[in-house]
Amino acid sequence: MPPLSTPLTNPRSDRVKAVRALSRRSVRVKTGRFLAEGPQSVREAVRHRPDLVVDLYVTAEAVERHPDIVSAADEAGLFRHEVSPEVLAAMCDTPAPQGVAAVCRVETASLEDVLAGAPRFVVVLTHVRDPGNAGTVIRGADAAGADAVLVSDASVDVHAPKVVRSTAGSLFHLPVVTGLPVEATLARLRRAGLRVLAADGGGHALVGDVDLTGPHAWVMGNEAWGLEPQVLEACDEVVRVPIYGRAESLNLAMAATVCLYASASALNAGANR
Amino acid sequence: MPPLSTPLTNPRSDRVKAVRALSRRSVRVKTGRFLAEGPQSVREAVRHRPDLVVDLYVTAEAVERHPDIVSAADEAGLFRHEVSPEVLAAMCDTPAPQGVAAVCRVETASLEDVLAGAPRFVVVLTHVRDPGNAGTVIRGADAAGADAVLVSDASVDVHAPKVVRSTAGSLFHLPVVTGLPVEATLARLRRAGLRVLAADGGGHALVGDVDLTGPHAWVMGNEAWGLEPQVLEACDEVVRVPIYGRAESLNLAMAATVCLYASASALNAGANR
Repeated sequence: MPPLSTPLTNPRSDRVKAVRALSRRSVRVKTGRFLAEGPQSVREAVRHRPDLVVDLYVTAEAVERHPDIVSAADEAGLFRHEVSPEVLAAMCDTPAPQGVAAVCRVETASLEDVLAGAPRFVVVLTHVRDPGNAGTVIRGADAAGADAVLVSDASVDVHAPKVVRSTAGSLFHLPVVTGLPVEATLARLRRAGLRVLAADGGGHALVGDVDLTGPHAWVMGNEAWGLEPQVLEACDEVVRVPIYGRAESLNLAMAATVCLYASASALNAGANR
Repeated sequence: MPPLSTPLTNPRSDRVKAVRALSRRSVRVKTGRFLAEGPQSVREAVRHRPDLVVDLYVTAEAVERHPDIVSAADEAGLFRHEVSPEVLAAMCDTPAPQGVAAVCRVETASLEDVLAGAPRFVVVLTHVRDPGNAGTVIRGADAAGADAVLVSDASVDVHAPKVVRSTAGSLFHLPVVTGLPVEATLARLRRAGLRVLAADGGGHALVGDVDLTGPHAWVMGNEAWGLEPQVLEACDEVVRVPIYGRAESLNLAMAATVCLYASASALNAGANR
């Protein structure tokens, strides 16, 4: 199926500027949109959340190279703009978008939506500032089968280009709720029957010793200074990942991976994996 | 104790240029030295491997801020140069070395040295090219209590500034052997009685189902294209980390974390953690 419009070739057009402006948080907040760049992100958007895709931009070369994206887009009835490589480069934050990008609506799932689904385990990110870490934790939560990622109002914007890239498409796989006040969120999770577990190097319990077979939430903090005292107090238990060697700590993404896979392992024991 | 020399204040001196040149691989290879930058790396170097430290550079402010580094250096009898912040900045690759850097000798441990220690588990990195991933895996291997990291000749140089930084000091905690030919190394590990396990998304065995209580080696491959067929064939078993959600894969550092913590958990079950 041919593209539905004549190719866009002017990298200085108003449309290109408007897309490029989505790399700024203020513009994302104002418009409620963000940009998914590159085949991996766009493929997952088109496949799993075509309802979020507003505009799809593809170069002629990428149409040939990624027939799966094109056919999934056509199947979902998505409007597809053909663009020149110069236009795509001018739209994107990454230096190598590999021919595809999609303007997407920001998901509007709420904490109540997540709780209505009777989640088995969720991840809460508080004061996480590093884009790569935030994205990697979202990817890990997806891989481990978590039901949602809940992001505090003081964390990095998960729709920033670097975060989107490092989720490797997982942003379109599970609900990611943003802008949540931490303490009220933890209280709400506890009222909903989830055991709230702080992941912190100062915890007494070891991740391998905690019962993870019931509904629970993992609370992960800032890369440099961990969880705040009032957040630790609002949790049911403070849990640490054991350090067997001489390393002082694991980084946030690694600690999260160990915790989330412990949950997955406990919840899927005996199940058909 | 006062610094042992008058402060170095000329950022254009030959000494400064020689230190800065260590950010180039060719210079590291020629001199057998590399630069550890920032308090975390330098603290671990001075504490755990003072025998590798050739020159320690500290600003007056950092002497006040990091008395632990200064006293550990004095205790180890290390020569300490006071430098101006401009000199330190000119020496370092990182824009914020936070007042300390140390020129270190490259460790010369060999595979035979590692095997002589009857290792319980080791990590083999083959064709790992991303500095952050390589450093993070070394840090994770340290945290999980691995006995060594063995790095193939086709991998990133583990003494490059970005790798050193992302190891967070772990480079000084466990033997990291570099420049190894992959297939000969795997054969040698098997002859030494280690079970050689390839970590690969295409594996049949799941990490949770593999017996990790005996001596073994985890073989980790390139971020983008995994392990080469001839490497997979040289392994006893190909093992994957299960994906419970919709993510296509985990990144290298996360997959390594799951595998290494599975080893740690199996080897330390029942032990005093």
